[in-house]
Amino acid sequence: MQLLEERILAEGKVLPGNIIKVDGFLNHRVDTGFMDRIANEFRRYFDVGRITAVLTAEASGIPVATICAHNYGVPLIFAKKAKSDNIENGLYRSEVFSYTYRKTVTLILSTEWLGPSDRVLIIDDFMANGNAVQGLLDIVSQSGAALEGIGIVIEKGFQGGGDRFRAMKGVRYRALAVIDHADETGMSFRKYL
Amino acid sequence: MQLLEERILAEGKVLPGNIIKVDGFLNHRVDTGFMDRIANEFRRYFDVGRITAVLTAEASGIPVATICAHNYGVPLIFAKKAKSDNIENGLYRSEVFSYTYRKTVTLILSTEWLGPSDRVLIIDDFMANGNAVQGLLDIVSQSGAALEGIGIVIEKGFQGGGDRFRAMKGVRYRALAVIDHADETGMSFRKYL
Repeated sequence: MQLLEERILAEGKVLPGNIIKVDGFLNHRVDTGFMDRIANEFRRYFDVGRITAVLTAEASGIPVATICAHNYGVPLIFAKKAKSDNIENGLYRSEVFSYTYRKTVTLILSTEWLGPSDRVLIIDDFMANGNAVQGLLDIVSQSGAALEGIGIVIEKGFQGGGDRFRAMKGVRYRALAVIDHADETGMSFRKYL
Repeated sequence: MQLLEERILAEGKVLPGNIIKVDGFLNHRVDTGFMDRIANEFRRYFDVGRITAVLTAEASGIPVATICAHNYGVPLIFAKKAKSDNIENGLYRSEVFSYTYRKTVTLILSTEWLGPSDRVLIIDDFMANGNAVQGLLDIVSQSGAALEGIGIVIEKGFQGGGDRFRAMKGVRYRALAVIDHADETGMSFRKYL
C-alpha cells in the first residue's frame, strides 16, 4: 500500500534491536481517518462480506482491528493477556512467546464469544516472528471457527513471521507493507502482488 | 442511557467481588454498531467539535474510545501500561493502583503525542474507584492540554470514583449508566439528569 509505505518512511523511526516505531499514526496516537483507508485496503484481499467477527490480541492491535470491524459491520473480539496463573474455566488459551517483552504470555478468549458458526478475519498492527498471530490461529482452531484470513498492517519481513503464514496451505495472508530491511540509514520495502 | 441500561440488565453478569461483566458487547467481544450509539450519546454532553483527541488507557477502554475518536474525526491516544521499570525518557507518567489487578501500574504516554495546543476528551469503558481516570487526568495536566471532559460508559456508583469527579470544580463528567447496587439478585441504576 503506497500511502502506508510513504507514511512509514516519513514518520517511522528505527530503534536499536530492529524496533520500528510508527506510534504517531498506528498504535499509540492513532490516526483514525487513516485507519479507514487501511480497512478499505484489506477489503481488496479478504471477503469481509462473509466474516462474522474480526479477531485481534491486546493491546496495540485493538485500534486498527476495531475500525476494521466497525467498517465491516461485525463485532470486534480481542484475546486478552492473562494477568495471573489462576485462569478461570470456559476459556480458549494459547501460550505465546512475546518478542517485545521477552517472556511467555497466555492469550485467553472466553469460549462464549467464538464458536463453529463463526468466520473470522484476524487483524494485527505488526507482524514480527508471528508468535502472537500463531496464538490467535490456535484459538480459532480450538473454537471450531473458520478462518477467512490474516491481515497485517506492517510486517517486518526480516523476522520470518509473514513467510511462515504465506507457506501455510489454505491460509490467506496479507501484509499491507513489508519492511525487508531497516536500520538507522533507512528502510526498504518488499514488492509483492 | 436507556438502551445501555437494558443491555446491562439483559446481558450483564455480577461476579463475586462486585465485578460486573458486560464483555459480550463492551470489552471482550465488542458490538461495534452499538459503540456508534454510545459515541453519539456522548455528543449530548461534550462539545466534540472542539476536541483534538480522545484519550484512554490500555486495554479495555480502547475499542469504545477508538470508535468515539473515529466518529468525531480526531486521533485516538491511549496511555500504555509500562512493562518494565526501565522507562525511557520523553514520557508523561502516572502511577495508579489497579483495582482489577491489585497492584500499582505506571501509565505512560509519549510527550510527542499530547501538548498545550490539545483539547482532550477522556473516554473509558468502566469507572470503579477512578484511579485509572485520575492517572489520565494527571497526564493531561502534565502535558498542558485542556480537558473537555470525562465520558464513561458504565460507572459502578457504589465504588465512589464517579462522585469524586462530579465534585471536581471545572471538570465535566458523564457516565452513561450508573450502577448503584449489584448482587446476584439484580442491579439498580441511578437516575440523574
